[in-house]
Amino acid sequence: MYPEGEARIDPSHPRYISLRERELLVAGFKAGVVVPEGLIAHGRGEMFDYLFGEETLPLALTAERAAAAALLTAESPVISVNGNLAALCAEEVVQLAETTGARIEVNLFHWTEERTKSIRALLESKGAKDVLAECPDSFLEGVNHDRGKCHSDGIFSADTVLVPLEDGDRANALVEMGKTVISIDLNPISRTTLFSSISIVDEVMRAMPNLVRFSKELAGDEARAKSIIQSFDNAAALKDMYRLISERFAQLARP
Amino acid sequence: MYPEGEARIDPSHPRYISLRERELLVAGFKAGVVVPEGLIAHGRGEMFDYLFGEETLPLALTAERAAAAALLTAESPVISVNGNLAALCAEEVVQLAETTGARIEVNLFHWTEERTKSIRALLESKGAKDVLAECPDSFLEGVNHDRGKCHSDGIFSADTVLVPLEDGDRANALVEMGKTVISIDLNPISRTTLFSSISIVDEVMRAMPNLVRFSKELAGDEARAKSIIQSFDNAAALKDMYRLISERFAQLARP
Repeated sequence: MYPEGEARIDPSHPRYISLRERELLVAGFKAGVVVPEGLIAHGRGEMFDYLFGEETLPLALTAERAAAAALLTAESPVISVNGNLAALCAEEVVQLAETTGARIEVNLFHWTEERTKSIRALLESKGAKDVLAECPDSFLEGVNHDRGKCHSDGIFSADTVLVPLEDGDRANALVEMGKTVISIDLNPISRTTLFSSISIVDEVMRAMPNLVRFSKELAGDEARAKSIIQSFDNAAALKDMYRLISERFAQLARP
Repeated sequence: MYPEGEARIDPSHPRYISLRERELLVAGFKAGVVVPEGLIAHGRGEMFDYLFGEETLPLALTAERAAAAALLTAESPVISVNGNLAALCAEEVVQLAETTGARIEVNLFHWTEERTKSIRALLESKGAKDVLAECPDSFLEGVNHDRGKCHSDGIFSADTVLVPLEDGDRANALVEMGKTVISIDLNPISRTTLFSSISIVDEVMRAMPNLVRFSKELAGDEARAKSIIQSFDNAAALKDMYRLISERFAQLARP
């Protein structure tokens, strides 16, 4: 798809993931996988990650464990993949689909058949066997035109959908359709984060490997997975996140 | 340069400037004026603007008045123009150069002669008469290679430089060279904001027209301009900004 192994950034660099992400997104952009709007959206997330010290917060880790549990215990889980996610985490998408039995659906906000195809090809090059991509035959309820396109035996009929880097309107439509929605979004006050059932406020390149790891750990232990979901309180976790950001700025304001 | 009058967004839309900016940047990108990294950087700023309610804060307005005063009273002011600024505010750059007597210098972080030329042409199409662009003959002290390129009779010898959307290393180099540095950057904790003499934490598409307006108001009244500069305290203004952000998140954290 596009050249790998081109990293010129030293992995020991303290900002390695952040710098590597920019490289991957720009490469994905040149390959037709990422759209310009995706680059702007990525910048918005970067800003919050900077506030979080570019680390997975304990709060995010808790949400990631609950998300893995929810995917494992779902009847028909689906991982929704857009251009940015494909450019950043194609391998982890394939791994997570394998460990949780989720289907993969390419689902684009700026939809073109060609880009859908490029992303499917990229996922298949990482070992994906069953990717729903071209020719969506259904629509999300209440979302207009291209932006609502989806597959009837994928996202449309799923009970649980993982939406990394999702638009607020679409996340809301999925919730309204009665689904368990798991988002990955660095913005703790985005509409996607506010609407979701489980809101992972973390960088996708850190969150996705964590989801793979937790889903391996919890696989086969349904009782434990269900108890983790039971004890997870999304609204309380978000308020803790806001308190933490407030305290960071209060520190900066001190004389 | 690239088609104007294409705005499909209603100017009465509450998020008009933000949506219009994305359109302009994507158009600028397609025209070779904006680089992909510029789109990501714009996203980082968008995030803070969202926190500020997409409005110029009173604190920012105070900094804008001081910045206009500093440009007016400078011996040799220069406006540094990069791709994003050209895509968003070419007309205001030309107006501000006229009202303050500042020179315009195209100064790119991701430098190519071709892009320098495109940006000069864009500025000239808006009426700029004297743009320093191709063939930079000097370097910022301590900044390597292409990123330090500048003109000896522009930024290099200026006493006051307006750097909208500047990189931290370059802003620091200008300060180290003894210049008064005026930044426009939505990120209140960026290195550029922290290093600058006058840090305008505001959206460029709001800040630039304000700078034009204040420079017209203060033109010819040097005593008033000097008193405004005297009473401006950049460090105190930034701490007020942090306090404000802290309070916004504290509110969200309340039960």
